[in-house]
Amino acid sequence: MRLFHHPLQSEHAPERELHNGDWVPFAECPERFAQILAACGGAEVASDHGAGPILSVHDAGYVRFLEQAHGEWVAAGRKGDAIGYTFPVVRRRPLEFDRIDAKLGAWSMDASTPIASGTWNAAYWSAQGALSALDAVAAGERRAFALCRPPGHHAGADYMGGYCYLNNAAIAARAAGDRGMGRVAILDVDYHHGNGTQDIFYASPDVFFASIHADPVTDYPFYWGHADERGEGEGEGSTLNLPLPRGTDWTAYAQALDAALGAIGEWGADMLVLSFGADTFAGDPISSFALQTDDFARMGERIAQAGLPTVIVMEGGYAVDDLGTNVATFLDGISR
Amino acid sequence: MRLFHHPLQSEHAPERELHNGDWVPFAECPERFAQILAACGGAEVASDHGAGPILSVHDAGYVRFLEQAHGEWVAAGRKGDAIGYTFPVVRRRPLEFDRIDAKLGAWSMDASTPIASGTWNAAYWSAQGALSALDAVAAGERRAFALCRPPGHHAGADYMGGYCYLNNAAIAARAAGDRGMGRVAILDVDYHHGNGTQDIFYASPDVFFASIHADPVTDYPFYWGHADERGEGEGEGSTLNLPLPRGTDWTAYAQALDAALGAIGEWGADMLVLSFGADTFAGDPISSFALQTDDFARMGERIAQAGLPTVIVMEGGYAVDDLGTNVATFLDGISR
Ligand SMILES: [Zn+2]
Ligand SMILES: [Zn+2]
Repeated sequence: MRLFHHPLQSEHAPERELHNGDWVPFAECPERFAQILAACGGAEVASDHGAGPILSVHDAGYVRFLEQAHGEWVAAGRKGDAIGYTFPVVRRRPLEFDRIDAKLGAWSMDASTPIASGTWNAAYWSAQGALSALDAVAAGERRAFALCRPPGHHAGADYMGGYCYLNNAAIAARAAGDRGMGRVAILDVDYHHGNGTQDIFYASPDVFFASIHADPVTDYPFYWGHADERGEGEGEGSTLNLPLPRGTDWTAYAQALDAALGAIGEWGADMLVLSFGADTFAGDPISSFALQTDDFARMGERIAQAGLPTVIVMEGGYAVDDLGTNVATFLDGISR
Repeated sequence: MRLFHHPLQSEHAPERELHNGDWVPFAECPERFAQILAACGGAEVASDHGAGPILSVHDAGYVRFLEQAHGEWVAAGRKGDAIGYTFPVVRRRPLEFDRIDAKLGAWSMDASTPIASGTWNAAYWSAQGALSALDAVAAGERRAFALCRPPGHHAGADYMGGYCYLNNAAIAARAAGDRGMGRVAILDVDYHHGNGTQDIFYASPDVFFASIHADPVTDYPFYWGHADERGEGEGEGSTLNLPLPRGTDWTAYAQALDAALGAIGEWGADMLVLSFGADTFAGDPISSFALQTDDFARMGERIAQAGLPTVIVMEGGYAVDDLGTNVATFLDGISR
């Protein structure tokens, strides 16, 4: 399988995040990227598709903000990583601001997604990796893997959150649609609900979104991913949420996976974008499912049985020492 | 003038708040309360009106959350003050959660409004002070002052923010309406926009809300208080925002004050609830207007000239050493 990455993805290195009331070391660390690269090997450098496919998903003002935010933070005399502290929870609307702190809140959903000096370049090249993997599938590969970091599935069209800035899966799915690659489904198997991806396609009948994740009653991102969220307007019925309780093991997980793949099949998908997170692993430090390394091979095999051309984009996974092995095991399973 | 307070208002003492990317000492400190009490003297203990008038403004689930949040925080093994880190910036809706961190974000608009052990009692009695001041005015006093702390004007019907938990001004205004005291106007002269008060009455034709404040393009709460926000539905035209630039001195401020009082008069208000903040003071450490201590006497005189029975509730003001004098000067001016 062809793999895509870019060296600038390592340069995104915030120091800390706000979690459960205090600073903790930033879990989405560059070492994740190094471990996956080392375990999988042979990754190609992503090719540059420019800003066009990013702007097909994301608000132009938001993209400009991401590009300029760290510079404005430094210019304002702030120290460390840029984060917001106030958020437009009601009557959110586009506004122009003269203060970086206002912009940070306006374009985000949490105080846990810092912008550091290398963030924009890393996010840009993470998205280019997803587009490069799509190129490979468009050219006839059965599947391809984008070693996306930062991840993308929590980022909406105009907000960052949950370590995510640009929504790599949505960018690939939209580009596939624009290229006439047929009906596109996104399957999100990260431990956390892919709220950004859901939001981007919530009213759209063109992209089916299915997510298997920890119940948001207990787990981030809390406010989205509940089973009653099924899309709206023309997109009614094209969103499927399968929340599972903490402690879920492979037996229960496999049932949800079959349900999701069944729905994707019934919808008539021609291709799949897979948001793959390894934070369903039993040893993940910030998550609470109970999958073992071998289960990732099983997960890969089942998804392969759907028989769809598949662009795989990396999302979360924070058990750094096991991350490379878990990703390689999954890629091995899906290639069988 | 009769003044109202309660000793439990001193017990609200969070250690720190998130501001501009890092922890800073909590600006809304108990010493503020002590300074105002000392400078004004002779305050009566508020009488208890129960939860009824609070629940006429605030969501019952939100009030229950405020009451229980610190206990749940401690029970979850968290340290320090309770704050959220993720916020429902899109598709906000009522949801039940099993995790305190989810609840904290669900019911707030920032990460700067911590809940400490004494917070609920202080907020409860702060609101009772406002209701006690309303009692005095209902009984014939020309005006009365509630030494509210925590302040209230950033708190919405179902969210906290900006050091505010219960909206004391809104609670007094709603209670005045319920008592048949005629048409009620709220004038907010705190440095910051009273976004919570605005939100509570945004669609209501029954309460006029006018606010003079720092332009939210540069100042908290950023997302509300812009001049084009004029109410909606039946409340269209009953909200008036007069944002002013940083550096505003008394000359420019007085013009905005005259405009606000003129609009309140035209609207035909029978009584006034005044959200008074002393953070318009030139020496305020977190604000940027240029009013001097003597200007507060002028401000009080102008408001008195409107000739309306007035319930004055305390909002912000963070130049602690000057706060007592500034408040006493204002109360002296409005009593002339
Ligand atoms: Zn995740
Ligand atoms: Zn203020």
